[in-house]
Amino acid sequence: MAMAGNYLDHVTIVLHRPRFPENVGASARAARNMGISRLVLVEPENCDLTRVVRMATHAALDVVENMEVFSDLRTALKPFRYVVGTTARLGGERQEVGTPREVAARLVSICANNEVALVFGPEDRGLSNADLRLCHELVTIPSADFSSLNLAQAVMVLCYELFLAGRQGRPKPVLPKLANRHELDAMYEHLRAVFVRINFINPENPDFWMRSIRRFFSRAGLQARDVKVIRGICRQIDWYTEQYRLQQGETRKD
Amino acid sequence: MAMAGNYLDHVTIVLHRPRFPENVGASARAARNMGISRLVLVEPENCDLTRVVRMATHAALDVVENMEVFSDLRTALKPFRYVVGTTARLGGERQEVGTPREVAARLVSICANNEVALVFGPEDRGLSNADLRLCHELVTIPSADFSSLNLAQAVMVLCYELFLAGRQGRPKPVLPKLANRHELDAMYEHLRAVFVRINFINPENPDFWMRSIRRFFSRAGLQARDVKVIRGICRQIDWYTEQYRLQQGETRKD
Repeated sequence: MAMAGNYLDHVTIVLHRPRFPENVGASARAARNMGISRLVLVEPENCDLTRVVRMATHAALDVVENMEVFSDLRTALKPFRYVVGTTARLGGERQEVGTPREVAARLVSICANNEVALVFGPEDRGLSNADLRLCHELVTIPSADFSSLNLAQAVMVLCYELFLAGRQGRPKPVLPKLANRHELDAMYEHLRAVFVRINFINPENPDFWMRSIRRFFSRAGLQARDVKVIRGICRQIDWYTEQYRLQQGETRKD
Repeated sequence: MAMAGNYLDHVTIVLHRPRFPENVGASARAARNMGISRLVLVEPENCDLTRVVRMATHAALDVVENMEVFSDLRTALKPFRYVVGTTARLGGERQEVGTPREVAARLVSICANNEVALVFGPEDRGLSNADLRLCHELVTIPSADFSSLNLAQAVMVLCYELFLAGRQGRPKPVLPKLANRHELDAMYEHLRAVFVRINFINPENPDFWMRSIRRFFSRAGLQARDVKVIRGICRQIDWYTEQYRLQQGETRKD
């Protein structure tokens, strides 16, 4: 347990008395997707590896292969310097309970130098008060009306928040280059001329429709390449209307 | 579909070609826990209700009972004014993809006046490029190394972010009513016909330019009145090209 590398390498998911092997497999998969690869089972009721692996899928096979199994929670938690317990119920001894986002933000700092365990109770009852006393802090997943997340879904949410919490500092995705004011003005001029020519707008009062057009193009945040597409369309319409005008002239001459 | 009450009442989870009834049930449970109770299935491969309900549990029974089933995605999406597609793969047509948190923040505003669909593809392949073209925007769940969330886990993360986004406390700006999928499809059909007629796009391969067009219109979040303006423009171009065609016919006869 050397303290180096990714902070997620110092997080272990602990499932206390999981009842269904499918939930163990789905938890392994959820954790692995979020960069967490250590899983501990305590007194699993059924640990049929075929059923575990079917839900873990090939992608999380390494998590299942390296999974450790203990016969009591206290022993399983011995190597950890910080233990977070998950609870759906509130009140009583569960007065101070953080949200996954708050707890994840704290854990990113804690993980840097400490092995951390995230403990989940059995599907039907959750962690007991005695189990919770082994925890440094508690976390609950907010939910509507009632709270009854599936075990693997609860693992999913916690791992997701932990994964994201460490990425907050990363540079944000860069927006592609937007069209500059000059390109936009030329495009709107061109559009207006085309619309007048095809009698879509009245040359005396072009502003009403142009406002609509500007409004939705502005919302779109037009890029330089979008402006090129739109001006290409305008040129095609120009060509047609010009052909029509010329032909009309010829027809009249006839 | 009256626009009132909780914004989550205007969100529907759409599972396109789900293969396993357990995933449908687990998705119903995840959604219900986060206050979302509308679920739509499109071409489910297996819809064994016993297996669906076992995973949904009693708590999400109402979601399963009110679930609607459609035989194609386009029809299923007709009533929605804003469609978000989920994708694990990036690149190609999937250039601009938001994170669940960014998209959830936007959706809180959009939901106030618009029915919103969150679409998830089949477990093994995800949404196709054709499916994604029905979407206003795309979202991908960030993950470590590889990306292979279970369907119900992906539903969990999106619903969780949507649920939290509305609880941030700050009142969000309310977006006006957007054009529905039906209005948009008819508009894109009309645009494509016009573009072919004015030789802006090659009828053999219309997709390249149409993708550009869809991309910036989707970013704009077109409203019903914007669609009316665009179709008005199309009709004017139709009129001109038709006059030109007629005149050419006459000229030739001369």
